[in-house]
Parts: sequence; structure tokens; C-alpha cells
Amino acid sequence: MGKGRLEAFSDGVFAIIITIMVLEMKVPHGADLQSLFSIKYVFLSYVLSFTYVAIYWNNHHHMMHAATRVSGGVLWMNILLLFWLSLIPFTTAWMGENQFSLWPVVMYGFILIMAAIAYYFLAHCLGSIHGKDSKFSLYLGNDRKGKISVLMYAIAIGLSFVHPIIGFGIYVLVAAMWFIPDKRFENKINDSSGQ
Amino acid sequence: MGKGRLEAFSDGVFAIIITIMVLEMKVPHGADLQSLFSIKYVFLSYVLSFTYVAIYWNNHHHMMHAATRVSGGVLWMNILLLFWLSLIPFTTAWMGENQFSLWPVVMYGFILIMAAIAYYFLAHCLGSIHGKDSKFSLYLGNDRKGKISVLMYAIAIGLSFVHPIIGFGIYVLVAAMWFIPDKRFENKINDSSGQ
Amino acid sequence: MGKGRLEAFSDGVFAIIITIMVLEMKVPHGADLQSLFSIKYVFLSYVLSFTYVAIYWNNHHHMMHAATRVSGGVLWMNILLLFWLSLIPFTTAWMGENQFSLWPVVMYGFILIMAAIAYYFLAHCLGSIHGKDSKFSLYLGNDRKGKISVLMYAIAIGLSFVHPIIGFGIYVLVAAMWFIPDKRFENKINDSSGQ
Amino acid sequence: MGKGRLEAFSDGVFAIIITIMVLEMKVPHGADLQSLFSIKYVFLSYVLSFTYVAIYWNNHHHMMHAATRVSGGVLWMNILLLFWLSLIPFTTAWMGENQFSLWPVVMYGFILIMAAIAYYFLAHCLGSIHGKDSKFSLYLGNDRKGKISVLMYAIAIGLSFVHPIIGFGIYVLVAAMWFIPDKRFENKINDSSGQ
Repeated sequence: MGKGRLEAFSDGVFAIIITIMVLEMKVPHGADLQSLFSIKYVFLSYVLSFTYVAIYWNNHHHMMHAATRVSGGVLWMNILLLFWLSLIPFTTAWMGENQFSLWPVVMYGFILIMAAIAYYFLAHCLGSIHGKDSKFSLYLGNDRKGKISVLMYAIAIGLSFVHPIIGFGIYVLVAAMWFIPDKRFENKINDSSGQ
Repeated sequence: MGKGRLEAFSDGVFAIIITIMVLEMKVPHGADLQSLFSIKYVFLSYVLSFTYVAIYWNNHHHMMHAATRVSGGVLWMNILLLFWLSLIPFTTAWMGENQFSLWPVVMYGFILIMAAIAYYFLAHCLGSIHGKDSKFSLYLGNDRKGKISVLMYAIAIGLSFVHPIIGFGIYVLVAAMWFIPDKRFENKINDSSGQ
Repeated sequence: MGKGRLEAFSDGVFAIIITIMVLEMKVPHGADLQSLFSIKYVFLSYVLSFTYVAIYWNNHHHMMHAATRVSGGVLWMNILLLFWLSLIPFTTAWMGENQFSLWPVVMYGFILIMAAIAYYFLAHCLGSIHGKDSKFSLYLGNDRKGKISVLMYAIAIGLSFVHPIIGFGIYVLVAAMWFIPDKRFENKINDSSGQ
Repeated sequence: MGKGRLEAFSDGVFAIIITIMVLEMKVPHGADLQSLFSIKYVFLSYVLSFTYVAIYWNNHHHMMHAATRVSGGVLWMNILLLFWLSLIPFTTAWMGENQFSLWPVVMYGFILIMAAIAYYFLAHCLGSIHGKDSKFSLYLGNDRKGKISVLMYAIAIGLSFVHPIIGFGIYVLVAAMWFIPDKRFENKINDSSGQ
């Protein structure tokens, strides 16, 4: 079973999610700068979510590049990931329109956790069909970043009850952590081919 | 005539249908949990429709993978299928906003029946250009699941007049039936290549 | 210069145009059949426009399949075609919401004429880079259907001033004319290869 | 690392940006010509933005065609470009609805500058991984058009404080400048292969 169409479909969904979020950024009624500043929370939510979807696309791109085959289970795990990501425009709009108040920030973190877990399942589903000693499993490694992310989302949700802005701040931190390109794959592949 | 662009166009439409449905999930005005719960019917409709479109994409993926060529008739049958699927965001929103009341639930089933019939035509159109003894026809088999689905949609519509929630429940059941990956194709191909 | 990315971009735009039109079909407020029937004009407009965009995609698919190369001019002519087609969701919604009244129907025909002319330019731009005796030019032929369509759109606009429903009826007729798959290409190629 | 999926994802985003802008062109309530003319500013903004996104797609197409490989940095620079372009539907709607008043026109220019800078970074990131004497760097040249554009956007923003229509006029001029197909690449490649 080829991976081409899975990538094409996923790229389509990623591209649409990342782009339709802008439709939730309602045009302000006034034409002055003050009207523009009134949507600052909506804009910040947009930037954060754009970054997260871009990170997911980027990681998905690298992971599927390393994969050599897919299975029926992989297709469904991929769809589960896309399902959680498809809720990002909704939760982004809810968080932005309510100026980072408690429940929308908690909800945002919940969606991030579910997406991270779905990504974990997808990765391990791919890992199991490639075998333990494959290049793919070397790439996957122990997925430390993924595990740290879930932990930090959970902490963010907890601390949101102190003040939601702390939760939002941690989401920004996690995104920043992922933004740094992951050299792991290239190094490991190089190491293994150098043996 | 190549099947590549038919797949690309279909993937685009599938990806857009599955993603724009979230735009129909209007952000609640309040920022508390109660506001979030107020859209529970809309959310349930979203999950069901997301699942159905994913199932169609998955089946379409497998069927086109098995196909080796397409014809003008196949292009049009494919477009007919996409037409009925394109109405899913509309009927999903209607059903969700009206909390699963009678006519929206009936309408939802009607769209599912029409999509299933269009899929049947598409499959048989592909079958007829591949020939009766082709790998493709082996894959197609007697399409029992497809026939059972149409029957169950019809029953769901009928029982919706008793109570619409029964109709909704049957739609969930049919989706669950499809969710189970279909081993048929792989087995049959293996059988035939083993002869 | 490769034609792959032109096809990919065009497929994306076709897929989005054909799918976002459903967003203009606002969900009726009531949950009864009467509410559903209240959007009958919107629905009819939707069906007609879905058909037209599908016809354009289908013809585009066949034409680009026959093409072996593209030029900068072709890219821009293609974008011009997509520009006019991108206005179809707008004019569809305007026509549907105003129940086929005069100016929306005229406007709809105007967009169809402009799209047809852009398609004509695209086809001839492709023809000129392939040369007069190429397979592509054989495929193109004298493009009788295209010329008849433009003429009929113009007649439709004129007769809309008698009654807009006549204009709408002619648009349906033209779509029906295109719906019939065009055997020309396959025959001509067969003829030429048979010589 | 392959460039195929970067192109596919970018094509998706380009296609969606260019198409969803039409959703911001709200259907006028009346059915007469006067209602249609009432959205003339919105329409002009739409045409300008459609043209700009098409220009970006076209340039992106040519640049990626010349590129033979991509890096992690290229992926992120590409995403930065898409981020700024994704704001075009928003700023287009704001400018159109406010009939080209000062701040929306300034904002429009600001987004154009940021997109141009992101494109510059993307181009130079690609240039650095291809090497100074590569075909790609020949293609890139000194990117005079790109530099003139940024300068003209800045002038447009400044002169908008005299009258916003001057700013808008300069945006049209810059677009017109890009609309002329760039022969540079083909010539240079021909020159270099002719040596």
C-alpha cells in the first residue's frame, strides 16, 4: 500500500486547517488602528495555532519521509490525528474571542494533548510495521520531545486555574521548543550508515 | 487515461469537505463550560460526519489503488459521489443545530443513501472497464457491506419517525461497521496469487 | 517547464471552488420540511454551479492530459480562467438568494462567458506552443462546443430580460450539452494513429 | 529531503488563500445593479489580492522548479511566507469594506512588505544550500524586482498619509510590474548552457 495518497490527503487537510483559521479572524468594523488592536487576542491565538499546525505538518512530513510503507491502521491513526487538529480552528476562535479566559485556554490544551497522543499512536503504528531495527525506528527514537510536550500541556492546564495566561505562556514555550529543527534524524541516519 | 489527477482532485474535495465542517461549529458566546456543552449536538454531528467522510476517503483510496485505469464515465460517477458528499456539511449543520429532530435526521440518511448509491455506480463502472476476472473485480467482490449499509440507512429513516434518536443511532452503527478495516481485498489478492 | 504543478494548483482551486459553495447554502432556521423547501432556489443554483465547475475540471483534465508542455503565458491564462471561476460561488449565492431575479441571472451568464473566453485563450495558448500538427491541436479541433456555449450564454442573457427563468433554462441546457462526454479526442487520436 | 511535499503543501495553501477570499465578498442584499455596484471596493480589493497571490504562486513555482533540494530552514522560511500570505484575505476584506481608507491601506502594504521579506529569506536560504555557482543562484540573480517592490511598498505606505488612493495605486503598479513574465531565468540558463 502506497503512502503517496495518505500524504496528499494529509497535506490537503493541513493546508485547509492552517488557512481557514483566518476566516475566524473577523474584520473589525472601524477603519482605525484602535479597531485593529481590538482583535489582538484573536491575532495572538491565530499566530500560535498557525505555528502548531505548521509544526505538525513539518513533523508529519519528516516522519512520512522516513516511512517506507503504510497499513490500514496507519491510515486510521492518521485520520484520528487530523480529527483533533481539525478542532484547532474552533478552539483558537473560542480562546481568542474570550481573551484567554479559563475554560477556552483549558480546552485549547486538551486538544493539544489529544493531538499529541494521536501523533504518538501514529508514530508507533508506523514503527511496528517497519520493525525495531529499521531506519524508521532509529528516526523515531524515544520521542522525548513528544513526551515532554504532553507533560507540559498537562502542567499548562493545571496552572491555568491559577491564571489562564500562564497556560497560554506554556503553550508558547512548547511551540518554541518544537520550532527548533530536529537534527536527530539526520544524525542517527548518518551514524548508522557510518557503521 | 491516468487515474492520478482523479485521485488528486478527489483528495482535495475530501480534504475540504472534512475540514470546512468545523466552520459550521459556531463558537459559543460564553467562555464557561456550560456554553461549551450547549453545542454538544453540533459536536456529535461533526464527529459522525467526520467519520463518514474519512470512511469514504479510505474506501475510495483502496478502490482507486486497486484500479489500473479510469474512463470518462468513471470521472462523472466520481463527481456524482463528490456531489452527494459535498452536501454532508450542510446536512450535518442542519441536524446539529436542530438537536437531532425528525426531518434533519431523515435528510441526513437520505444524503447517506444517495452517496452510497453513487459509490456503488462508481465501483461498478470501474468494475466494467477492468473486466470480470480482473484483480479489481476480485477486490470489489459482491460489496456486501455497501448493500447492508443502504438497507440500514433506509431502516434508520423509517424508524426516525418513531424517534429520530433511533435513526441517529443506526447511522452510528453503520459507521462503526465500516470503521473495522476490510481485510477482504488483501485476502482475496493473496488467495488468487497463491493459486 | 513541467505541467505537474499547474495541474496540482488548478486541482486545488477547482476542488475548493466546488466545495466552498456549500458554505453559501445557509442552514434553514426551522427543522421542518417547509424550511428545507425555502432554500430550493439556493439549492438549484448550487447544483448548476457544481455541474459547471465539474465540467470545467473535466475539460481541463482532458486538455492538460493532451498537453505535453506549458509556458509562462499558459500559467497566466490558466490563472485568468481560475479567476473567473472563483467568482462562481459569489454569483451562485447572489442568484440563489434572489430567486433567479434579473440581474443576478445576467451576472451569472456574464461570469460564464468570461470563463469560457478565458478557457478559449488557455486552449489556444497551449495550441500555439504545441504546433499546428501536434496531437494537441488535433484534440483541440475547432472547439465547436466552446463557441456554441458562448453564443448560447449571450442569448440567455438577452432572453433574461424577457424572463430570467429563460436565461436560467439555457444555462441548464448548455451544461447538459457539456455533460455528454466528448468522444472527439479519443476518436481523432485513434484516426491519426491509424493512418 | 525531497521538495515534492513542500510544493504540494504550498500549492494547497496558495489555492485556499486565493479561493477563500471570495467568501469575504458578501452577497449584496438587493438584486439590482446598484446593489452590485455597492461592493465595488470589495471587488477591486479582491482582484488586486487575487493577482498578488497568483504572482506569488507563479514565482514560487519557478523558484522551486529551479531548486534541486530543500532543507529544514527552507521548510520554515516557506511557512513564514505562507503565514504572511495567509493574512491577505483578512487585510483585503478590511481594505474593501472600509473603501480604501488610511489604516487598512497601510496595513495592506505592511503585509505585502512582510511577505516580500519572507520570500527574500526563502530565496536566499535556497541559494545558500545550492551554492554560489549553481544554476539556482544564476536564476536568483540579484533579485532586483523583489528589492524594488519592497521600496515601492514603503513609498506607498508613506504616500497613503497624503491620500490612501495613492498607496492603492502604487500596489497596483507593483503588481503590474510582476505580471510581466520574467524572462531572466530562461535567458540565464540558456546563456550558461551555451558556454
